[in-house]
Amino acid sequence: MAVVVTNVERTPLALVDTLAGYGVATIHEAQGRTGLLSPRLRPIFRPVRVAGNALTCEVAPGDNWSIHVAVEQAQPGDILVVTPTSPCDDGYFGELLATSLVAHGVRGLIIDAGVRDVAELTSMGFPVWSKTISAQGTVKETVGNVQTPIVCAGVYIRPGDVIVADDDGVVVVARELAATVAEKSEAREKNEVDKRQRLASGELGLDIYDMRAKLEARGLRYVTAQP
Amino acid sequence: MAVVVTNVERTPLALVDTLAGYGVATIHEAQGRTGLLSPRLRPIFRPVRVAGNALTCEVAPGDNWSIHVAVEQAQPGDILVVTPTSPCDDGYFGELLATSLVAHGVRGLIIDAGVRDVAELTSMGFPVWSKTISAQGTVKETVGNVQTPIVCAGVYIRPGDVIVADDDGVVVVARELAATVAEKSEAREKNEVDKRQRLASGELGLDIYDMRAKLEARGLRYVTAQP
Amino acid sequence: MAVVVTNVERTPLALVDTLAGYGVATIHEAQGRTGLLSPRLRPIFRPVRVAGNALTCEVAPGDNWSIHVAVEQAQPGDILVVTPTSPCDDGYFGELLATSLVAHGVRGLIIDAGVRDVAELTSMGFPVWSKTISAQGTVKETVGNVQTPIVCAGVYIRPGDVIVADDDGVVVVARELAATVAEKSEAREKNEVDKRQRLASGELGLDIYDMRAKLEARGLRYVTAQP
Amino acid sequence: MAVVVTNVERTPLALVDTLAGYGVATIHEAQGRTGLLSPRLRPIFRPVRVAGNALTCEVAPGDNWSIHVAVEQAQPGDILVVTPTSPCDDGYFGELLATSLVAHGVRGLIIDAGVRDVAELTSMGFPVWSKTISAQGTVKETVGNVQTPIVCAGVYIRPGDVIVADDDGVVVVARELAATVAEKSEAREKNEVDKRQRLASGELGLDIYDMRAKLEARGLRYVTAQP
Amino acid sequence: MAVVVTNVERTPLALVDTLAGYGVATIHEAQGRTGLLSPRLRPIFRPVRVAGNALTCEVAPGDNWSIHVAVEQAQPGDILVVTPTSPCDDGYFGELLATSLVAHGVRGLIIDAGVRDVAELTSMGFPVWSKTISAQGTVKETVGNVQTPIVCAGVYIRPGDVIVADDDGVVVVARELAATVAEKSEAREKNEVDKRQRLASGELGLDIYDMRAKLEARGLRYVTAQP
Amino acid sequence: MAVVVTNVERTPLALVDTLAGYGVATIHEAQGRTGLLSPRLRPIFRPVRVAGNALTCEVAPGDNWSIHVAVEQAQPGDILVVTPTSPCDDGYFGELLATSLVAHGVRGLIIDAGVRDVAELTSMGFPVWSKTISAQGTVKETVGNVQTPIVCAGVYIRPGDVIVADDDGVVVVARELAATVAEKSEAREKNEVDKRQRLASGELGLDIYDMRAKLEARGLRYVTAQP
Repeated sequence: MAVVVTNVERTPLALVDTLAGYGVATIHEAQGRTGLLSPRLRPIFRPVRVAGNALTCEVAPGDNWSIHVAVEQAQPGDILVVTPTSPCDDGYFGELLATSLVAHGVRGLIIDAGVRDVAELTSMGFPVWSKTISAQGTVKETVGNVQTPIVCAGVYIRPGDVIVADDDGVVVVARELAATVAEKSEAREKNEVDKRQRLASGELGLDIYDMRAKLEARGLRYVTAQP
Repeated sequence: MAVVVTNVERTPLALVDTLAGYGVATIHEAQGRTGLLSPRLRPIFRPVRVAGNALTCEVAPGDNWSIHVAVEQAQPGDILVVTPTSPCDDGYFGELLATSLVAHGVRGLIIDAGVRDVAELTSMGFPVWSKTISAQGTVKETVGNVQTPIVCAGVYIRPGDVIVADDDGVVVVARELAATVAEKSEAREKNEVDKRQRLASGELGLDIYDMRAKLEARGLRYVTAQP
Repeated sequence: MAVVVTNVERTPLALVDTLAGYGVATIHEAQGRTGLLSPRLRPIFRPVRVAGNALTCEVAPGDNWSIHVAVEQAQPGDILVVTPTSPCDDGYFGELLATSLVAHGVRGLIIDAGVRDVAELTSMGFPVWSKTISAQGTVKETVGNVQTPIVCAGVYIRPGDVIVADDDGVVVVARELAATVAEKSEAREKNEVDKRQRLASGELGLDIYDMRAKLEARGLRYVTAQP
Repeated sequence: MAVVVTNVERTPLALVDTLAGYGVATIHEAQGRTGLLSPRLRPIFRPVRVAGNALTCEVAPGDNWSIHVAVEQAQPGDILVVTPTSPCDDGYFGELLATSLVAHGVRGLIIDAGVRDVAELTSMGFPVWSKTISAQGTVKETVGNVQTPIVCAGVYIRPGDVIVADDDGVVVVARELAATVAEKSEAREKNEVDKRQRLASGELGLDIYDMRAKLEARGLRYVTAQP
Repeated sequence: MAVVVTNVERTPLALVDTLAGYGVATIHEAQGRTGLLSPRLRPIFRPVRVAGNALTCEVAPGDNWSIHVAVEQAQPGDILVVTPTSPCDDGYFGELLATSLVAHGVRGLIIDAGVRDVAELTSMGFPVWSKTISAQGTVKETVGNVQTPIVCAGVYIRPGDVIVADDDGVVVVARELAATVAEKSEAREKNEVDKRQRLASGELGLDIYDMRAKLEARGLRYVTAQP
Repeated sequence: MAVVVTNVERTPLALVDTLAGYGVATIHEAQGRTGLLSPRLRPIFRPVRVAGNALTCEVAPGDNWSIHVAVEQAQPGDILVVTPTSPCDDGYFGELLATSLVAHGVRGLIIDAGVRDVAELTSMGFPVWSKTISAQGTVKETVGNVQTPIVCAGVYIRPGDVIVADDDGVVVVARELAATVAEKSEAREKNEVDKRQRLASGELGLDIYDMRAKLEARGLRYVTAQP
């Protein structure tokens, strides 16, 4: 009863690549602190940063069959996003699947489960964010949906939404908001240049952000240490 | 009431070293997806790969006395495998014990507990797979069994079985199956060469593994995305 | 109702820097196996070692306001120690706050919560020990105590106590015991030089530490493996 | 920037109450093993079973302000579903809020965070499924969305979808599928009556489900124990 | 090198018993949301509520020797508070120790580790809050401090401070603040009587707490659901 | 490639039933603190105590097929012991399987995974110790070994070994040691009768177990509290 949705519209790669210019923390802030996947997903090597269109895929616990189905749906610039239908730490993905994805222009993998062959994946420079590293193999008996909306690591993701991932984690940007979020991210970064200089010169955030009155209003008191 | 079993037979080192030529994921597959220790055991540095004969050791929680007993039983080519009799994250093992093990030809440590001095162990190039990194010291009051069969990280291990460990984790190969598993691993690797090339050239796993009919039989449907 | 204690006395930096000469495991042993923070705190890069005076700070869950307050209290040689008033994995701290701390001579951050911008923090060489890495931003609505005694990662820490942190974790040394602990650490290290040489030459811990009689008294038995 | 969506359409209560006649496991099966919230949500008392329309609510970590906003949107037959914008174990909810919800006809609470006053909630018979029990209080500084689609405990939930919860956990049924799922649940239960009798009489599942040939095809072998 | 501090002053039992009249959540609020132990500590039976003077005790991992030392220090009205020097889930405490404590007037046990004989402890009505239930026994080789200040489940506790524990968890009240906290708890409870009635009659928290203007100022918007 | 071992010898039921007369903690002690399964396995209702012969069964993640195979191997007095080949929290087992097991005289279930229908299982009085409660259903595609030695919750268990389980957890007794362990358990219980009376009368463990000299030798010091 599983479904593969074909011909899914992607976010234009020019826009995806613009978003790749900003870190996950910046984008997460720029879109109102939404869209961040659980920090249990960690990159297998660092430093790393990548952006791409979500190619979504559900897998049964201990079963990676639908990943093979998903490869056929890949387009250059995609990032494969895999979520198990119930929690699983098995090693769903390794060097051979990565080789196949690279051949189809896929830029990386986000998986709320385990991966293996991490030495080889690191040598290939194929970026992966996963919950676990595990050599545990999987079967091919049950097939899940491909290119349908999913929840991965606590966040709702639709095929063709933009995924940005770096050392800090993984964030999703809704396709229709991608241009706006890119603009806001740019504005945020510009705004930080000045702040960074002021902070580097020793100026206090208390003054830059004008916090003293507000803190006093909240009842913050200063007392001198007793000798 | 603890016991040390002496004169334990090992797997011949030539065979152990052959197994070291394959990754943990390959060996795990070659022996029918058995023998993999829990992925909670992680290497303290990467990349890394080692194989050796299991030198087994039980320790009480917060007590590393029997590790000292185990060192005397070490033979060149061994890997020390330590399991606590109840779960513990303390730092049972550090630079001095590693120095001692290296002097007796031991190739690494597998421990379902904590280790410390990881900067020094890394400098020495002494490989460790552990559950935790912790500076918490241990006492020497209770002694556990050495060179008896143990369960470590969820897997039954007998002294003299082969341990293979790499970036993906740790697997045990039963001594009497070691030759067979080496052969099957070799066959697996050869088989993957061709597959890797076909996948790298863009051929799909769906075709290479002839999955389409089986997927259809399972009811997989393809639908076009609604604009 | 939050309080900032000003003019807190620090441990003299000469003494702090002496303690920085020893690893966390050594110091933890030298002070009787006390003062070690939970191993859930891990460094964002390795190898690393730093020592400094604790600049303490409480934060509400998902709220980093008091970190800004704490910066003003910083003195050269401090290490900022942050604990949430209830458990939280959010990314309380990033590049801008690190820039500000560096400008005031702060040497690192210990936080029982999350941090972000870890690629930038790593480039800067600003050491952080945290529970999580997360891009999740925080608000500025609730202010916590600064420079009061806190419990961080299970350990009681007073402002001006010495923090030493390395690849193995984080330990606190009470200000009034710092000189004694430095001496005992020195003695421990000297003592280990000789032991390391004897162990490296193949001598057994069983003999160096004279354990055989005690082990026999505890009932340890040696049996030969059955063929 | 938070939003409250008013006048949300509910699933008719007659249909909701029909679904309440089936257990969570039955409904989960009837809708193709989808919609089950993470088993980390557990009821505060057992046995218990309830169904209602989802009244959704996002909360900031350590901040329960939007729950007060949600109460005003309540209609008889609703179940309040609360998700934090980042993980939090604080006690967001207690006796007073339960009293308020009961006054507006709300049937229970699903919260991927903590609750308190569980003795009082148990005495009142107000059912709660939560991640934690914690007395830790929350602030009222940041407001989240009310009656928008959310992800709670790993599942996407829209306001007005049906929640069914019992000793086994919590499942959501999409509003437009509720009637179909009720029918399939009924069919499942009827089908089980006969199976239960046959199994109770000692007949084997291997025979009832005609598994023997398939097992043999999969290579299952029977061997006699060695004495 | 362990120490037992004798003749520790307690909080007067009349005051302790007054505090027992309030729930943990109320007391936690009354003292400014401080003093709450980690919610990982759960009661072995419910409902339950008890208050007493903290009789503190440190134990080594897997070693309950100092609990025997602590019993001698017990006074009627005490609650034994046990913390391991490194995390441990073993069953440190069972029916015999409970029998001994009851004989000396001790009212309950708080332990950041495991207990056993929970069926017997439940039959005796001896209340326990623990991290785990485990039959795993412990040794008697290493002794820890008794009646010194400790950190238990994340909170700093001094001998003679008041412990209150119920279905919601465990809170500590500093001895010198006990009278004040009792008064504030009483005031809180009185204040809640009126609120409870208003909420029960259907009045909204939004109105009772006068939240509407503040919410609007924070930008909360109401929109009507699209059909 | 899975195997079912038939005609497995059991421990005589008279002996099993004798062991059922002792609690898990007692048996665990009587056999030298071995054989205890991880405390992550908890009973679905309390109080409870049962003993039986282990009927072992491996299952793939998310796949309960081999449980059906195991039922055919059941004999009166067995307890089904199920372990997944990689960690899984799904609900492998519910009312129908319990009905089938009861029809064949099986006394309970030990499973290092999830169960469902816990309200019904509780009504039936069918005892279960599990890692999770979850309604998540499983497939029937991969078959595991039945009646072979397994590791369950960290412990090595052979078919026909004795399982004893109660409120404190689960312990296994090797078949060939069952009689000896029963005797030692009996001796332990008798020994405790006298101790319990002495402790109940207020006598101290310090005196009963003659600990004072040993504690002094270990350096325990008594100091009087400073006012």
